[in-house]
Parts: sequence; C-alpha cells; structure tokens
Amino acid sequence: MSLLTVGSVAFDVLETPFGKTGKILGGAATYITLAASYFTQKNNLVAIVGDDFPQSMRSVLENRGINTEGVEVRKGEKTFYWSGKYHDNMNVRDTVEVQLNVMGDFDPQIPKSFQGAKYLMLGNTSPTIQKSVLDRLHKRPKLVMLDTMNLWIENTYDDLRTVLREVDILTINDEEARMLSKEYSLRKAAKIILEMGPKMLIIKKGEHGALLFHGKNVFFAPALPLEEVFDPTGAGDTFAGGFIGYLAESDDLSFENLKRALIYGSAMASFCVEKFGVERIVNLTREEIEERVSEFVKLSVFQLV
Amino acid sequence: MSLLTVGSVAFDVLETPFGKTGKILGGAATYITLAASYFTQKNNLVAIVGDDFPQSMRSVLENRGINTEGVEVRKGEKTFYWSGKYHDNMNVRDTVEVQLNVMGDFDPQIPKSFQGAKYLMLGNTSPTIQKSVLDRLHKRPKLVMLDTMNLWIENTYDDLRTVLREVDILTINDEEARMLSKEYSLRKAAKIILEMGPKMLIIKKGEHGALLFHGKNVFFAPALPLEEVFDPTGAGDTFAGGFIGYLAESDDLSFENLKRALIYGSAMASFCVEKFGVERIVNLTREEIEERVSEFVKLSVFQLV
Repeated sequence: MSLLTVGSVAFDVLETPFGKTGKILGGAATYITLAASYFTQKNNLVAIVGDDFPQSMRSVLENRGINTEGVEVRKGEKTFYWSGKYHDNMNVRDTVEVQLNVMGDFDPQIPKSFQGAKYLMLGNTSPTIQKSVLDRLHKRPKLVMLDTMNLWIENTYDDLRTVLREVDILTINDEEARMLSKEYSLRKAAKIILEMGPKMLIIKKGEHGALLFHGKNVFFAPALPLEEVFDPTGAGDTFAGGFIGYLAESDDLSFENLKRALIYGSAMASFCVEKFGVERIVNLTREEIEERVSEFVKLSVFQLV
Repeated sequence: MSLLTVGSVAFDVLETPFGKTGKILGGAATYITLAASYFTQKNNLVAIVGDDFPQSMRSVLENRGINTEGVEVRKGEKTFYWSGKYHDNMNVRDTVEVQLNVMGDFDPQIPKSFQGAKYLMLGNTSPTIQKSVLDRLHKRPKLVMLDTMNLWIENTYDDLRTVLREVDILTINDEEARMLSKEYSLRKAAKIILEMGPKMLIIKKGEHGALLFHGKNVFFAPALPLEEVFDPTGAGDTFAGGFIGYLAESDDLSFENLKRALIYGSAMASFCVEKFGVERIVNLTREEIEERVSEFVKLSVFQLV
C-alpha cells in the first residue's frame, strides 16, 4: 500500500565522542522514508528544501525508490539546518544551532499523484502544518500516524489536541508522554493520551525500548543491547519509518501484526545508530534486516513449560 | 532442590510520596527468601539479628516455610537498621540513616542441616563475608549466585574480584555493571565481567527490565509497566529470590529455563513494588503468580509470520 510522509528534510552537523561530521543529510522525513523504503514500494515524500540542497542528497532518497515529487525547492532560500553535540554516554544531547530557514513557512502541497495514500506519516512539525495535510487529502488515509515533540506540547498545546483527534497512532518519547498527560506512570499516561483521540500510542524509550498501547493491550519491544552506539540521531524517526513501512507493506492492522511492525521498527533503529546520520540505513539488504529481527526473537521470546 | 540464602535481615523505615512506615521487616535476605518460598520448599536462611528482633517478624518468614535455624540472635545487640526516603518519581532514593549494628561483625555460621545445599544465594554483604560462606560449605553448591553493590565495588574491589572467581551468576544493576567493568556499553561491560569468573550475568535495570548474559546468549525480561509503583524497596532482591527459587525448584540450568526464571523473577518484583515493604509478597498464591507471568507473555512474546 502507498505511504505518504510529510516532514523535514535537513542539513545536519553532528558531533559525538567518535567525531564530527560536515553538513550531512538529515531531517525526520529523511530517516522515516529511508527506513520505510525497505518495506513499501510506494513511498511518497512531501517536504521543503532551499536551492542549496544538492542533487547528490536528493539522489540518496531517489536511489531508495522514494518519490520526491512533493519536495518543494524554494528559490533563493536555505534548507533547514540543525547541529547537535552528544556527550560521553550519548544520552545527553545539546542543540548547537538551529536555522529554520525554509521550514519557517512550510506549507505542504500534496501532489495530485500522492492523493489516495493509504498510510500517512506526519513527521515532527507544528500541529498546524500536520492538520493542514489532513485537510488537503481528499480521502482520509486508512492509517494516520503522528510524531510530535516537547516544543509543540508546551507552545501549541491546543493545536496539538485538535490534530490528535484525527490521528490513529501517536508516537512520542517517555518524557513527552509524561508532559502531554501530566502523569508520571507511563501506564496512566497512556490511558489519558488514548482518550485524546489516538487509538494507539507508541512510547519510545530510546535504549530502553518502546511500548505500544492499544485499548487494553500493551506490547513491549526491547532495544537491542549494542556494543557501541555511534550516533543516535534519527533513531526515533527510523523506528517510526520501519514501523509504518512494515504496516503499509503488510496492510494488516491486527495487534499481532502491530507487534511485528514494532520489532521491525526497533531493528531499523538498531542499524541507524551504528554509523553517522543515514549512512547505515541507505544500503541495507532485506537479509540483514531479517537477521537483525531474528536477534530480537532470541532476545525477547521465551516459552513457558 | 534446596536453596541456601545468606544475607541481611533488617528493620526498615520507608518514606515514599504515599506515606511513611514504622519499623518494618526488611533486609535483602528477607525479600530473597520470601520470593523464593513460592517455588522451592527447602528454603534455608543464614542471617543475624539483635535480641530486639520480634518473634512476629520471624514468624513472617517461618509462615512461608523458611527455615530460620541459621538466623543468629546476638544478645544485647540491635538488628541492622536502614531508613530511606523516595522522591516524587520513585527513581531517586536517599538513605536517611543506617545503623549496621549486628551486621558490623556478621560471621555467618552454617548449620549442619544446611550443608549440601544445591543452590546458594549470597545476598548483598561484604565480599569477605560472601567468601567465608563458600569456604564453610563442605561441598560446592551446583549453582552459586551473588549480589553486590557500589560500596563493595569501590571499597573492596580486590576482595570482590576474589569471590567472583567462584560464582556462577552475578546479579548487579546497570550502574554497578558500568562501575565494575569501567565500560558504559552494557554489552561490552557484560563481556568484561564474564571474564572475571561468573558464567552468567544479570544486569538489573529497575523499571527498564533486566538483561541476562550467558556466553553469546542475551535475553531481556521487561519490567511490567505498572499503574503505580508504591514502594520500590526490595524489588531487586525479590527479583533475585524469584529467579533462584524458580531455578532451585526446576533444577534445570538450560538457557531456555534461565529465561523462564528471569520472567518469574520479574513477575515477583512487579508484586513487590505494589505495597510497602514485604506486604505484597507474604501472601500471594501460585495462581496470582502464574497470572502475572501470563501478562509478561502478552507483553513481550510475538510471532514472525
């Protein structure tokens, strides 16, 4: 089934204890669509860049079969820029610099050929932008997934609540779930958030895995304990992309299949952190992915006697 | 099979956002033997208390079938005392007061009838005390499990390394694993620690579950996401007690069975935190435990197509 992703494409400059990059390809929608590309063939992207965005980076997406017809190039303007620095244990990250540039007035236009998407991923942008995408689709997708962040919860709470009413799956991290629900217990937080609109909630806990809540069902996907986390940038988006890509490919929304999608998402995220930026997720094979998934089976499946 | 536990029995005074207790029954060996009592029938305890330790508390243990013949009562002295206070989110705990009292010169004597134990749990005490227990057993148990803490890693590192050579399973938390191995990555830390002697390593991550390392095998048991954590005191010891009690009952050291033991340990810990102190783990039924275990199956078992 077709997947439509709307979100940021960016230049990132990353510094970790392992080194520093130049300007590399980044942005939530980049990671999402790259991860999804291993599953779904119809992978449509709506984003915005400046005319400083090089063809070489656009090719990284196109080489993975991502349709970039919806990537607007704003003449005379600059691409969204973010630079960040990770500290020793990779758990603390400082934003060094943000230049919104073209993202400042991103007004996503949906190409005609992208209409009718069955699966929609609203990457982390303002709730107003996210809502406008829903309003511009002629037909509601079968599944709408939305990612957001602390900034929007704090500054545009009402707008966020409005768009949440139209969403099937919300994906946020544990801190954001606590912030949005005003509850520390994630179980209680999930209950409150599921009353705001979304039928399903994914709480990402980084190196501690991810929880999926759906009605009374709860499923937990661990993160793979890795020898080395090289660069955590984009891991959450890669997870989301693997998850929704797997769903779009299988087109099965049973809880059993949602569990599998969560595991595939976690597997994709485990690759992402092994190298800088998107480096590790641009030329994987499906065999490598299946092998990684089998590590998750070993890691978490047990049988009672 | 018989289980021998050596460790502390204590008076605890606990304060959480939910309230404050008076002097209640505590101590690592208390939690361990209570949790193990739901699995193994031969549950022998070696500990020390002062003559202020009331029969009512001793009865709590004896009513669960724990053999307290090895609990020495030191005349004219006082029982080990600990008081602690938890902050809002239960993740930060301050020690308010510690009185070592009789624990200051605990010199564990093994009753004749306790010799020949197949399973030995060395609760968190000094490595010297732990080593003396091994030296006093006429026959090496089939399985020796040891718990320790930051204090011993910092202050008695060499003694700890000595006793670790004789241990089958080490159980510590994530911070302690990092401290002991001088490695941040838990996967690397495990490799280093498994070269110190133990064949198996359990890294406890509290609300984030527990990892079991055995050779190249890794298994992860999640913690159950609970509506409310009432009092985390003793959760780690309850986990260890459930784990080793299950092993002692099943007497099967295959990796498949170790996984099950880890899940039973996690289930016992999930009960422990629901009430103050040992309150929730003194009168469970085996049915309640099996039901809880089935929640772990729902939480973490998935099937690939």
